[in-house]
Amino acid sequence: MRVLVTGASGFVGRWAVDALVARGVEVLAVSRRPVAASGAKTVACDLLDPATARKLLADTRPDIVLHLAWTVEHGKFWTAPENLDWVAATLGLMRAAEDAGVKRFVGTGTCFEYDWPENADCDEATTPARPTTLYAVAKDAVRRIGMEWGGLPFAWARLFYLYGPDEHPDRLVASIARRLAHGERAPMSQGLAVRDFMHVADAGAALAAVALSDLTGPVNVCSGEAASIRDIAGALARAAGRPDLLGVGDLPDRAGDPPRIVGAVRRLREEAGFTPKYRLADGLADVYAGHASRVETRPI
Amino acid sequence: MRVLVTGASGFVGRWAVDALVARGVEVLAVSRRPVAASGAKTVACDLLDPATARKLLADTRPDIVLHLAWTVEHGKFWTAPENLDWVAATLGLMRAAEDAGVKRFVGTGTCFEYDWPENADCDEATTPARPTTLYAVAKDAVRRIGMEWGGLPFAWARLFYLYGPDEHPDRLVASIARRLAHGERAPMSQGLAVRDFMHVADAGAALAAVALSDLTGPVNVCSGEAASIRDIAGALARAAGRPDLLGVGDLPDRAGDPPRIVGAVRRLREEAGFTPKYRLADGLADVYAGHASRVETRPI
Repeated sequence: MRVLVTGASGFVGRWAVDALVARGVEVLAVSRRPVAASGAKTVACDLLDPATARKLLADTRPDIVLHLAWTVEHGKFWTAPENLDWVAATLGLMRAAEDAGVKRFVGTGTCFEYDWPENADCDEATTPARPTTLYAVAKDAVRRIGMEWGGLPFAWARLFYLYGPDEHPDRLVASIARRLAHGERAPMSQGLAVRDFMHVADAGAALAAVALSDLTGPVNVCSGEAASIRDIAGALARAAGRPDLLGVGDLPDRAGDPPRIVGAVRRLREEAGFTPKYRLADGLADVYAGHASRVETRPI
Repeated sequence: MRVLVTGASGFVGRWAVDALVARGVEVLAVSRRPVAASGAKTVACDLLDPATARKLLADTRPDIVLHLAWTVEHGKFWTAPENLDWVAATLGLMRAAEDAGVKRFVGTGTCFEYDWPENADCDEATTPARPTTLYAVAKDAVRRIGMEWGGLPFAWARLFYLYGPDEHPDRLVASIARRLAHGERAPMSQGLAVRDFMHVADAGAALAAVALSDLTGPVNVCSGEAASIRDIAGALARAAGRPDLLGVGDLPDRAGDPPRIVGAVRRLREEAGFTPKYRLADGLADVYAGHASRVETRPI
């Protein structure tokens, strides 16, 4: 069993590669700039060049493609025109996979495809799609096409909110943890919005489970743990022993922020057979510890 | 004003080119195999090769792109995997257009994007999308992305049912007209389904009007004339003077055929300022006459 993973050097891709290697399959870890991945073969490839991507598939002939690569530049990817390039590249990869004898294609979507219900979890079968950013519209478009395509069994792993080591420093958990670790005040909004945060190691393992399953269609990759932003910041502050540093209300609430984005986990847990390693509080404590250790060990 | 038209040698593209030339704009008529187009400059280009398409835009720098090219092989395009290639090519063309200083992009969709209401016209603003074939899902996906894109003003001309000279011989109007012209029985279903048929010359002129307007978003390109398939066959039979040849009920009704697909014409008529040349009965009589003349003039 050979699994080709794109975006393999990314925030979640690295963990997906590790999880697949741990499950004993042969992994081809594809990224623009190859990075060492223990137990996996690394391959450099610019997937935005369709001929190169096609050759990669023809040369390596994997059984399964787990496609994570996309434009993800923090703060820019929501509206970046590169979203169009990644739709085109993804469709080209799907066509090349079919021609190369691949048996299964797993793409990755987002919780932002959903029309989030205010009082319920986002469910793959019953919650309608209503993407409202170019990024989410582009992801949703690939899903719609993939599900009607018929070329290969097609699964669509919808990632929710992630946190973990090596997160972009401006993202929620990393920015608060970093400030707390430096003994600085961590400004935040009232933080009443409820979200579904998953440790990136669990997300990688969940992607591996979906990739190696025979599920098709959308599958939420999420923790199912509903927590407010204030809860999450509080857990980090408790781990730091500095609840006094939490600047709740220092920042304005974002207008129009949806009150609740939480995923249903039944498909992931029962159908893909995934069990998470981290409870939210434990995962956040681990992440805080990582930030704290970097502060303590840096040269003075 | 320079307008680049893709799919310029196709069934409707030829008429769009003619209409644009008649309106006095400079036309670049792009197709895989160039065909002479009076008054337009013809350009051969394989749009499925992204680098070639990008170079075409950079070299010609049109003001407006009217993009008609797509996979349209009769009977196959509904499910053809080439729909994925055309989504990718279209997104690539949009990106290249933006980079080449194009001011406006007009893509072409289909009435099959709609969730057709049983007792009303399909309206651009109020009728929801519910595409159910790969072709329609692919077109709908490009529209969704294009409307969120923001790179260029983006209009989406939704074509309904077309008829006219040089139609594929297996399509409804051509097949019935041809049999009638040969004095053969024309088998058909009960023909109770109501459709919106537009003469392809009008469709081409309507596309030119949309291209040269400043409308954005979806615009129906249709006649607004609701007629049953039986009405249409009857008009052809009357034109032939042979109502006896109409085999109504010879063929089974297609299961699940939607009862009514008719477009609202307000945007096209009032906002794009388009006036059709043909009433349905007249257009069908013209098409029948074309078939009859070919029968009479062929060598014995």
